[in-house]
Amino acid sequence: MHVEASLVSSLKNIATRLRKESIRATTASASGHPTSCMSAADLMAALFFAEMRFDPKNPKHLEADRFIMSKGHAAPLLYAMWSEAGLIPREQLTDLRLFTSNLEGHPTPRLSFVDVATGSLGQGLSVGVGCALNARRIKSPYRTYVLMGDGETAEGSVWEAAASAHFHKLDNLCAIVDINALGQSRATEFGHDMETHRARWAAFGWHATVIDGHDMEQVLDAYKGARDTTGKPSVILARTEKGKGVSFTEGQPGWHGKAMSKEQMAKAFDELDGQVVTETGARPKIPSPPAERPEPKPREMAAPDYKMGDMVATREAYGVAIAKLGEADPRVVALDADVKNSTFSDKFEAKHPDRFYEFFIAEQVMVGAAMGLAARGAIPFPSTFAAFFTRAADFVRVAAIGGNNIKLAGSHAGVSIGEDGPSQMALEDFAMFTAQPNFVALYPCDAVSTERLIAEAAAMQGPVYIRTSRPKTPVIYDNAEKFPIGGLKVVRKSGQDTATVVGAGITLVEAIKAHDQLKAKGISIRVIDLYSVQPIDAASLIEAGNETGRLITVEDHYIAGGLGDAVARAVAPAGLTVTRLAVPEIPRSGTPEELVDKCGISARHIVDAVNART
Amino acid sequence: MHVEASLVSSLKNIATRLRKESIRATTASASGHPTSCMSAADLMAALFFAEMRFDPKNPKHLEADRFIMSKGHAAPLLYAMWSEAGLIPREQLTDLRLFTSNLEGHPTPRLSFVDVATGSLGQGLSVGVGCALNARRIKSPYRTYVLMGDGETAEGSVWEAAASAHFHKLDNLCAIVDINALGQSRATEFGHDMETHRARWAAFGWHATVIDGHDMEQVLDAYKGARDTTGKPSVILARTEKGKGVSFTEGQPGWHGKAMSKEQMAKAFDELDGQVVTETGARPKIPSPPAERPEPKPREMAAPDYKMGDMVATREAYGVAIAKLGEADPRVVALDADVKNSTFSDKFEAKHPDRFYEFFIAEQVMVGAAMGLAARGAIPFPSTFAAFFTRAADFVRVAAIGGNNIKLAGSHAGVSIGEDGPSQMALEDFAMFTAQPNFVALYPCDAVSTERLIAEAAAMQGPVYIRTSRPKTPVIYDNAEKFPIGGLKVVRKSGQDTATVVGAGITLVEAIKAHDQLKAKGISIRVIDLYSVQPIDAASLIEAGNETGRLITVEDHYIAGGLGDAVARAVAPAGLTVTRLAVPEIPRSGTPEELVDKCGISARHIVDAVNART
Repeated sequence: MHVEASLVSSLKNIATRLRKESIRATTASASGHPTSCMSAADLMAALFFAEMRFDPKNPKHLEADRFIMSKGHAAPLLYAMWSEAGLIPREQLTDLRLFTSNLEGHPTPRLSFVDVATGSLGQGLSVGVGCALNARRIKSPYRTYVLMGDGETAEGSVWEAAASAHFHKLDNLCAIVDINALGQSRATEFGHDMETHRARWAAFGWHATVIDGHDMEQVLDAYKGARDTTGKPSVILARTEKGKGVSFTEGQPGWHGKAMSKEQMAKAFDELDGQVVTETGARPKIPSPPAERPEPKPREMAAPDYKMGDMVATREAYGVAIAKLGEADPRVVALDADVKNSTFSDKFEAKHPDRFYEFFIAEQVMVGAAMGLAARGAIPFPSTFAAFFTRAADFVRVAAIGGNNIKLAGSHAGVSIGEDGPSQMALEDFAMFTAQPNFVALYPCDAVSTERLIAEAAAMQGPVYIRTSRPKTPVIYDNAEKFPIGGLKVVRKSGQDTATVVGAGITLVEAIKAHDQLKAKGISIRVIDLYSVQPIDAASLIEAGNETGRLITVEDHYIAGGLGDAVARAVAPAGLTVTRLAVPEIPRSGTPEELVDKCGISARHIVDAVNART
Repeated sequence: MHVEASLVSSLKNIATRLRKESIRATTASASGHPTSCMSAADLMAALFFAEMRFDPKNPKHLEADRFIMSKGHAAPLLYAMWSEAGLIPREQLTDLRLFTSNLEGHPTPRLSFVDVATGSLGQGLSVGVGCALNARRIKSPYRTYVLMGDGETAEGSVWEAAASAHFHKLDNLCAIVDINALGQSRATEFGHDMETHRARWAAFGWHATVIDGHDMEQVLDAYKGARDTTGKPSVILARTEKGKGVSFTEGQPGWHGKAMSKEQMAKAFDELDGQVVTETGARPKIPSPPAERPEPKPREMAAPDYKMGDMVATREAYGVAIAKLGEADPRVVALDADVKNSTFSDKFEAKHPDRFYEFFIAEQVMVGAAMGLAARGAIPFPSTFAAFFTRAADFVRVAAIGGNNIKLAGSHAGVSIGEDGPSQMALEDFAMFTAQPNFVALYPCDAVSTERLIAEAAAMQGPVYIRTSRPKTPVIYDNAEKFPIGGLKVVRKSGQDTATVVGAGITLVEAIKAHDQLKAKGISIRVIDLYSVQPIDAASLIEAGNETGRLITVEDHYIAGGLGDAVARAVAPAGLTVTRLAVPEIPRSGTPEELVDKCGISARHIVDAVNART
């Protein structure tokens, strides 16, 4: 193919500048990964200054092409690219990794041009799948590019994303693998065996092109080839040298995550300056994206429509709620991992098939794609069995770092699922989600509160986890009742309460049973529905603790990291302690009723705890 | 190939019996997955009764071939196989899923023939990698077989395992994919497109054979072909029909996870009985494995050899310790995910290269392989950055269910890693590990306690997590000091202590600094090193709380799920509450000292907390 010589010379010099800035910044901070930047500099110069359409002054532009630096340790390269594009003043690049700078060691969304935090390798392609699906949702021609290292393709999440991108025919997605053949501690698994790389991607259904990643003509050709490919995603497999451009780092082991000394930097700059070519034309101009089109305004969602006392599983109410929410708000999308008929997300699919995305049994890409969709304006509800979100725990962690606007719904929580046994029971999900300080964690006990909380989750900005249950539970709230995040409901109360029992989900039902049994014997207790586990209404819990003298929590979760701990943290400043009823050990198969009782969280055990005066 | 006709007829009838028992058991329990069993019945009849060498009376036999039912929802088939082999009385099969039976909904190691719990799909092949590596460790000819469903090959963990098995040239590993083309909620991604399946496995370096999974001759041939393959693992891609053998279930959607009614069962049995063939020979005899050879006895490990006051990072002490432990005990193995030069597991590799296994950047297979190794008698120490164990959170959950004897070591915990930023910081690792009620969680503060705790971890049976730190910390313990699991150390104490500060790891160092600063002002505090976070020495904590009046915890972890919560749970029964100093929000890049201080967990903040009298 013919590429303008003037463009090539200009891009080569940009690549040299990107290398220099990557070295300069890491030497200034005396830490970081300069050689991981140097291998990808040519690929990135071409991508940013001859391929992508974006607005350097408005990185969040809704119609702009996206770039995800999946190999997040090449952050200095990313920052140098945005500096070269004009967004970051050059002199700020040496603030890299300072506490006072947003130019962190690995990219985070504190920076306007970062959609999702990277640095935990192998996540970027899943995020890219989400960005690409969003383009389809908003009918935009924008394209999504993801730069990976060859080392990170060992992560299974990459292959989940590869399979999903093929399934969804994402020809607007282009992955670039910077195959520098050197990992952190040794050579990568396949080194420069480009054919093995090609065969793997081709077998996963991708248009795969092998190139020399330091040959600018080949790089430009490859981007064009990707752009011209329809019906499937493209991957550019670029053979590169780690530390490219400097004699003492190029292709050398022992340089991973190591900054150059000032003397080494001077020598490197001498060499790189010698590689500057004569530019034969004007500096390339970044093409502008099409004009932004604002998202349609959401309509008000109608109130829930349940009858008090009806038996409805909260997982089913979840399906009803997201289907309804999807009508009110076109930004809402649902993602599934082949359990839609159990989580009832198939109710959403039935009404909004074009905004329902199937990921088969692959939870990492489902959550990663949700992160990408959220970064581009969608409000994604990925759902699966709560237990299987542990598969995506690292994505959850990174979503928290980025404050991504995802709404994860986990069903079949706790021993109350019964016969399937412990592998299907989430008993540590709150521990996972509430550990993240900015995650909201919700746990409705009935259909009305489920629907209300889904609407609340969609209306707020930031990551949310919603836990639902398998068994049917009675509707206990009026359709008009409101459930603000951070609140709780006092569902039983008298002036003579001798203890407060705090439950949620299926244990709230048990707590009400216990209340009734105790009342029959003349003992009054307060019952609180802790539907918002995080944030938590500390003041109301303290008030209840002080008024009734005792706080007893009961939860279908292991004892560590769940409701009991959350309540204990909330009331500790008031000097109050909590008695915890929780699943004490690894459970086993059995009927739901049997397990709830044997695990010590049934009404009977609540009654006993109230009666035990220590 | 010629296969004895008498063998085939016998195996066909065994397969029919396996189908019948799978139906009978699930109908008895009115739940379960009969049709997922029926698709694999022919594959399993051939495997168990014409291929594998094992002792039906001693499933744990050290030299026996291994079978892992990765598609754990086919548990009734597994139970029927062991019943057919003579281990389980036939009449017990209908106890499936009863609380009183060990025949759970998905297999767990409560059963002698189950090495690792399955049911969370996509984990079995990683476990198989570990079993196969163990055969190499003990120089045994035993082979490992893993049955997967096609649906679960969407999990990235499967491809991590596939790449690892190829890298390690595990020709003693044979995967079988039961490609029945139907997932839970819809057709699988590739349906019966056998060529796509084949291309993917071949591209990952496997010997891949496509067969009709209901043609007994082809099945037997494929096992032989796998056995004859050297230098690489084999996969048998078997085209099957879900619900095979019964007209109204065979290849029908809508039957996933659904038991037949009694009437349907009667009709199915009629059909299956009609498929019984005339047996032309004797029932096949299961070949015995070679005699068991006991593992060599471990030697006593020498005491640590550090000098009080020396500055040593606990991550480095970890590397020293496992290398030393490896000399004393040949069962000890180490596993890495391309960070051996950061975790210092390269010290083990240097001394014991044949027991060091590299998994590149693939944490799921690393942990899964550790589970497999542990199940076969090894004592595996997989290590990586603590943050990246979240990648394997679902494996951790399942290892807990199985009580697997794995020893996970996570380095670079907390904000004290500094400049790399939040993506590399584990701040929720204790939340993850301590949520599992049977996980031990250890957190040494110096080199001596690290080495002692590594030895303790190896000596006990069950899952252990050890957290180490990046910065160098002073040696504060004498080499002779002992650190029993479940204990703590009171490192500063006087008769006038006005508060107890509980720290661990780097915060223990801060607590000692605070102690000294306060002492200079005439204020005495008690300082506790909580090196064993779970189990926890509740009695000593309560004693300290009662004696000093106040308990203050300080931890390099988010506030939920860490030391503070663990101590609070321990002391709550005594009516004591805890003041928690912890990382309050998502951190950022900075120097370690800066971050420890800005996050409120430095000596200065401890002093303030002691001085604050509320």
